[in-house]
Amino acid sequence: MRLRTIRRIVRGRNTKEGRIFDYTIQILIIISLVSFSIETLPGLSPQAQTLLQLIEIVTTILFTVEYLLRLTVAKRKFKFIFSFFGIIDLVAFLPFYFSWGVDMRFIRAFRLLRLFRILKLVRYSKALRRFNQALMIAKEELVLYLSMTMLLLYLSAVGIYYFEHEAQPEIFSSVFHSLWWSVATLTTVGYGDIYPITTGGRLFTFFVLLLGLGVVSVPAGLISSALSKAKAMNEEKDCR
Amino acid sequence: MRLRTIRRIVRGRNTKEGRIFDYTIQILIIISLVSFSIETLPGLSPQAQTLLQLIEIVTTILFTVEYLLRLTVAKRKFKFIFSFFGIIDLVAFLPFYFSWGVDMRFIRAFRLLRLFRILKLVRYSKALRRFNQALMIAKEELVLYLSMTMLLLYLSAVGIYYFEHEAQPEIFSSVFHSLWWSVATLTTVGYGDIYPITTGGRLFTFFVLLLGLGVVSVPAGLISSALSKAKAMNEEKDCR
Amino acid sequence: MRLRTIRRIVRGRNTKEGRIFDYTIQILIIISLVSFSIETLPGLSPQAQTLLQLIEIVTTILFTVEYLLRLTVAKRKFKFIFSFFGIIDLVAFLPFYFSWGVDMRFIRAFRLLRLFRILKLVRYSKALRRFNQALMIAKEELVLYLSMTMLLLYLSAVGIYYFEHEAQPEIFSSVFHSLWWSVATLTTVGYGDIYPITTGGRLFTFFVLLLGLGVVSVPAGLISSALSKAKAMNEEKDCR
Amino acid sequence: MRLRTIRRIVRGRNTKEGRIFDYTIQILIIISLVSFSIETLPGLSPQAQTLLQLIEIVTTILFTVEYLLRLTVAKRKFKFIFSFFGIIDLVAFLPFYFSWGVDMRFIRAFRLLRLFRILKLVRYSKALRRFNQALMIAKEELVLYLSMTMLLLYLSAVGIYYFEHEAQPEIFSSVFHSLWWSVATLTTVGYGDIYPITTGGRLFTFFVLLLGLGVVSVPAGLISSALSKAKAMNEEKDCR
Repeated sequence: MRLRTIRRIVRGRNTKEGRIFDYTIQILIIISLVSFSIETLPGLSPQAQTLLQLIEIVTTILFTVEYLLRLTVAKRKFKFIFSFFGIIDLVAFLPFYFSWGVDMRFIRAFRLLRLFRILKLVRYSKALRRFNQALMIAKEELVLYLSMTMLLLYLSAVGIYYFEHEAQPEIFSSVFHSLWWSVATLTTVGYGDIYPITTGGRLFTFFVLLLGLGVVSVPAGLISSALSKAKAMNEEKDCR
Repeated sequence: MRLRTIRRIVRGRNTKEGRIFDYTIQILIIISLVSFSIETLPGLSPQAQTLLQLIEIVTTILFTVEYLLRLTVAKRKFKFIFSFFGIIDLVAFLPFYFSWGVDMRFIRAFRLLRLFRILKLVRYSKALRRFNQALMIAKEELVLYLSMTMLLLYLSAVGIYYFEHEAQPEIFSSVFHSLWWSVATLTTVGYGDIYPITTGGRLFTFFVLLLGLGVVSVPAGLISSALSKAKAMNEEKDCR
Repeated sequence: MRLRTIRRIVRGRNTKEGRIFDYTIQILIIISLVSFSIETLPGLSPQAQTLLQLIEIVTTILFTVEYLLRLTVAKRKFKFIFSFFGIIDLVAFLPFYFSWGVDMRFIRAFRLLRLFRILKLVRYSKALRRFNQALMIAKEELVLYLSMTMLLLYLSAVGIYYFEHEAQPEIFSSVFHSLWWSVATLTTVGYGDIYPITTGGRLFTFFVLLLGLGVVSVPAGLISSALSKAKAMNEEKDCR
Repeated sequence: MRLRTIRRIVRGRNTKEGRIFDYTIQILIIISLVSFSIETLPGLSPQAQTLLQLIEIVTTILFTVEYLLRLTVAKRKFKFIFSFFGIIDLVAFLPFYFSWGVDMRFIRAFRLLRLFRILKLVRYSKALRRFNQALMIAKEELVLYLSMTMLLLYLSAVGIYYFEHEAQPEIFSSVFHSLWWSVATLTTVGYGDIYPITTGGRLFTFFVLLLGLGVVSVPAGLISSALSKAKAMNEEKDCR
């Protein structure tokens, strides 16, 4: 009888208790992420650091309790432990307990794993499901155009290397350095740390951009149209 | 009988007098905005400053008269006062009268409220209505993708912080500073004040951009398609 | 009888002579433009300058002949002279004759008018017609969204002025200087000559970009969809 | 009988042996490209250089064997030799053999031809075919809009030259230098090495961008919609 009550709270999506539980967990994740970001600020006062450590301890204990509750109500324990969200939940708090016994210098690397907590937010949203559907629809196209993008990035990197290497040997020092130029240029970010100065290199950039904008922007368009297809499919299903 | 004449002028959209009144107000708003912008120019002559102050006084008085006229013709006074445009109209001229009695240093902050006047221009356009319709159609999708954008921005900020913090401690000094990089990069603005220099950071930027361009550009596409839907719906309505 | 032959050459689009005439004019325009661009190169040898002047004289005389021929074959002389292309044709060669008598310093400004020659190329393409059709279809929307873009640019310029003026008085020195920032940012060009450095200004930039990308990119989308509509309409017409 | 076995391996797409052969060649191309890129890295140890040379010799010999096998199984030898992929295959390994007898300084230029090897990857993908179809559908439009883009780039280059030449004679030194600005601006890359500083030039940039974003982004949109058309056409064909 007791277990059924817990199950209703932890897994219930349509009950009042279930929703309160869900929102509490979501707020905890956001608090945990904000405090994690504040910790990276330089020049924090000792009081602030103590407060942030306290928040870390409290949220981690609450995430542990949440994990144990979910494990308790799970009908197939092993399936839950090795499920996608089961692993994320575990990975989100486990490093905290291990970091006490280990050398302080390693803690930093472990903390990175805390980032996975943010993926728990996705669990509660419809975005992942519809985005997944859209990705499934456009899967084949996306693979083709992403590989075309890769090819284009590589070819333009080699091209610009031959045009600019002699004029700017420090900046375009190898094909790999030129790849950084390809990425910044074909995505139109253009930081301005690396750009052609020779006439040949500039003409090459012009042709690469003419070709490239028609290839690089295609995957984004494919996702957009796949999303509207996924929406139409869902609405049709709802109507039936 | 008098009130009906005023009403025809102030609220009439299809009468000649009403349209003249509307255009006059719109021209006044534009004059007020232009003079407001010119005031910020450094090195204005005293004559110019006097002229700009005169324009400010005249336009503000005219906006006050307009507000009082609208209040007079309104059938439900309270509803008008607390309506969206009622509040904007009031806020657009009220700070002016208060600024005379207060310390000069505060005036600057109060003037910001004058900006709301520009929203009165929107009152006269169909853009707001159709844009509103489009936002209503795509509301659910927009919330989902804007939150995905937020998540992506945050995750990429944390990622780049770990890659670049040691190499550029002054520039990527905290997760919040890295967020500025995320915004400038994923929107492809790329000012060039902050960019990765390590190989890890550049590879990370590459993957974030491949993923990000497919997410960040989706809301814009959603609005575009929602607008064409809204247009089709309106045209269908007009045909009936 | 003679006039009819000239007419067949000058205006004929389906005759062999007409097409040769058209292509000759187009090649002349391109030659004239290329030589015009080369003239701006610094450090030209005297021989090259003489050659470029010769090209200018020859092409201008040929354009004059073309204009006179078109005038001769025109049935309604006045209509031709005051038509869009009639004026462009005249404006394209007239400044050349006047520049001989005038002070050398004025020639530069007059030459700008030569640019209109390029619009003669458009005369021979279907692009203008279909683009025109697309603009007519999306006219109302375009006006609305362009004015929304203007409004957004202005509002973001005022906003960033208040956030950044004190921190960077030299760069964000007035609302008009801030407008340059708005243009460079909302079009995602991001030259890097002007960008916010305060936390408030950066947050403001973030929100402006979130809003702005959804507005600024809409006109481009509207033209794209209007073009495909115009194409479908033309194909339907061709089928009948 | 022997020839038929080789044919099954080299040209077979549905047999097990054929697929193994195809994947082997693809992996070889990628190995060859990666080693080619690593060679450009500055400061390689002599051992690494020896290893890379060894990889080059081995892959080139294997590509030669592949070419000879393909030539053997080809029914019409001449047609294969002068086909698109026949030439690419030949060009991909031939420079290697010639580079041994020639002066070392020429090798660099010959190696550029090795790049064509990457196009062999395309041979194995469906991307080329569907992309080709999309290009065929939108061919007419693409030519029109690419020429409009060219025109716009040229006109904006001339315009900015007149506005900025006097203020920045070193940067905007000719129309050709200004073209580099046009390319970087209208594609919204915005490196930041060249930008207007005069009020006239900035206003001009604003209008060029308003116009330009609606023209430059159209070809990308045309390709996207042509791709979805090509997909729909293929799916219809598959259903029959």
